[in-house]
Amino acid sequence: MPSIDGDRVLRDLAAARAIGTYKTGVHRPTFSPDDMRARHWLVEQLTQAGLAAEIDGIGNVYGRDPTPGRKLLTGSHTETQNHAGWLDGILGVVFGLEAARVLGTGIDVAAFADEEGHFLSFLGSRSFCGLLSEADMDGIVKRETGQALRDALQEAGLAGLPRQRVDQTRYIGYLEAHIEQGCELEDNGLKLGVVTGIVGSKRYRIGFVGEQNHAGTTRMPKRKDAGVALVKFLAAVEDLFPRLAGPLTVWTAGDFRVFPGAPSVVPGRAELIFQWRDTDQAILDRMDAGFRDLLRQANEGPCTVTILHHSVTDPALMAPWMQTTLTDAAQQRAPGLHQTMPSGAGHDAQILSTALPSAMLFVPSIGGISHHWSENTSDEDIVLGCQVFVDATAAMLAAAQQAGRG
Amino acid sequence: MPSIDGDRVLRDLAAARAIGTYKTGVHRPTFSPDDMRARHWLVEQLTQAGLAAEIDGIGNVYGRDPTPGRKLLTGSHTETQNHAGWLDGILGVVFGLEAARVLGTGIDVAAFADEEGHFLSFLGSRSFCGLLSEADMDGIVKRETGQALRDALQEAGLAGLPRQRVDQTRYIGYLEAHIEQGCELEDNGLKLGVVTGIVGSKRYRIGFVGEQNHAGTTRMPKRKDAGVALVKFLAAVEDLFPRLAGPLTVWTAGDFRVFPGAPSVVPGRAELIFQWRDTDQAILDRMDAGFRDLLRQANEGPCTVTILHHSVTDPALMAPWMQTTLTDAAQQRAPGLHQTMPSGAGHDAQILSTALPSAMLFVPSIGGISHHWSENTSDEDIVLGCQVFVDATAAMLAAAQQAGRG
Repeated sequence: MPSIDGDRVLRDLAAARAIGTYKTGVHRPTFSPDDMRARHWLVEQLTQAGLAAEIDGIGNVYGRDPTPGRKLLTGSHTETQNHAGWLDGILGVVFGLEAARVLGTGIDVAAFADEEGHFLSFLGSRSFCGLLSEADMDGIVKRETGQALRDALQEAGLAGLPRQRVDQTRYIGYLEAHIEQGCELEDNGLKLGVVTGIVGSKRYRIGFVGEQNHAGTTRMPKRKDAGVALVKFLAAVEDLFPRLAGPLTVWTAGDFRVFPGAPSVVPGRAELIFQWRDTDQAILDRMDAGFRDLLRQANEGPCTVTILHHSVTDPALMAPWMQTTLTDAAQQRAPGLHQTMPSGAGHDAQILSTALPSAMLFVPSIGGISHHWSENTSDEDIVLGCQVFVDATAAMLAAAQQAGRG
Repeated sequence: MPSIDGDRVLRDLAAARAIGTYKTGVHRPTFSPDDMRARHWLVEQLTQAGLAAEIDGIGNVYGRDPTPGRKLLTGSHTETQNHAGWLDGILGVVFGLEAARVLGTGIDVAAFADEEGHFLSFLGSRSFCGLLSEADMDGIVKRETGQALRDALQEAGLAGLPRQRVDQTRYIGYLEAHIEQGCELEDNGLKLGVVTGIVGSKRYRIGFVGEQNHAGTTRMPKRKDAGVALVKFLAAVEDLFPRLAGPLTVWTAGDFRVFPGAPSVVPGRAELIFQWRDTDQAILDRMDAGFRDLLRQANEGPCTVTILHHSVTDPALMAPWMQTTLTDAAQQRAPGLHQTMPSGAGHDAQILSTALPSAMLFVPSIGGISHHWSENTSDEDIVLGCQVFVDATAAMLAAAQQAGRG
């Protein structure tokens, strides 16, 4: 197997960190000047690696190997969460770049715009997979500021450019490397994770409406306390879910609060944001049935309980043959130091998996820290991960060629 | 018994409503220009009623009957909550004013500053009862703006004026009328409430500290979810308290929230504000023991749970002989249409009761609405309440004179 240039990989990552540096991390929100600088920097690197590279009309950086034959698509994203880590996204892009350089042929590299969702999560990969219409684009605004996506594209110099679409006949599959963003590899003393699937999720925003009253003069039997209704509902969910969950299911009440939120006022209104995630659709569904049963029961109390918003993401299973190739490559370079695991976080690969066989390789996150400027992975783990990634791309292309896929 | 002039009482209340009108209510925060206008208006009314009236160095309006003999002190407050009702406070002051006019002698009238606590709850009655030092005053600021009390007094033209102190040899007691601020009288079809005691309270601000994490990548057994700790604690309190409470105890989680409060972030921190009220010290104390037991149990979980702030108000019992006089007066004018009841809200009478025998009379609140501009009481109920109030003042002064108190 061909060897990578580990120093070159680390130099690339350091160069990217220099664009929008924040403490030891970076701040590159989608379509900000620093984000666009990073995209142009990437176009340059891909061009130097021999790819035909450009930025398309949604901000995707897309570098294509001009030689004939079927290709493996690699990549991830280059923008970051606000004041976040230096590796989230760019690591997978640089691994793809290194694969293109080392293999010389067969590798395309993409950096999909706005995976982090400053405008819309997976904006670029949705566009690339044909899941984003022009009408969709008209309605999208930046969450924090309300700026229209169209205006942001105009400012970034991207308005009017064509949007690239995936050519399914060109690719044998899509491979993405990423930091784990959790601490399972570290806790298990391992170096590499082969992703089995990206979790799907159910997300609810629930509203509780009661009656706002004076906390001193309103007797208990007269009260319709929206905060108490929320607490009782959430306690019931926390009681039920362990019995419905699978071993890797996670569930989270990320936000809840009462209104008006004053010491001597019985809350008249409350809101809860709740989600759960698993790679197993059946588990997601049976928890949904349990959740909705509890909602019905909550509505028998003194407050009205309604679903204000509800959204669903289906689990994305990674291609088994690509998982096997990744595990073989990991075993070759780091015997016994790898595992299979689901991804609890979302990634472009979940969108790409609707169009192409897809797979992901994880490297460890120190302390599991993620979406924070202190996010980090040791140089040694980065270089090992890149070597395994490049080995796997070579093996995938070789296997596809042998099977007549190439 | 002497008859009041009901139209005059309603005219006085309407005149006060015209100062700082907001919709059908008023907006007169303590020491605002409208609040000071209302205080000067009251000085004028008291002077016309034959009292020696002034505003003192803490903003109390104090009108004294210049004739010899012991007096009954009446009153309440004139400032309001923000954008609040037209009767809360001023009703008791106008009833006192009418008593002074009708009886001609024996009645003093006070409007205590800042009962509503824009700076400090019961600021004026604390000062009057000797419970507010000059050093205390140095440290008090306006809750909403941080403006120093000293600066606000300066702006209001009150800096440097002496503060009046209660003369216990002058008074047989303190009598305050107020709107009920609840709907018990209305629900029971009654017109008058004789207050047995003003509830004491225990108030806690509780902090929960866990570990902020990614909601997708952090497995359930690894989590230290501060929001879950709060919900479990609060559910346990809601489960326990009905078993420890008396028939009239109230308890309220007026505010709780999690931090950072994002859909996909396991909350690392949470805060709860909780209080309970009763007139029975033993009940307050046994709930306190139960609450602290649950706090200890909560601390055995994955999060640390600490008391961030804790405050206590003792119950204030109303003088039995004054309650009897009020009940007799109510029975005379509205047979069978009165009841005894605790006050769930705080009132200046709870401070005055530390210095003088004190009592309170309630009139109904339509729909129990309080601290809102739509607060109201029917004209008929106001006039009836004032008549009973004035009857009672006359009876109290007569009884005191007979008993050698006068």
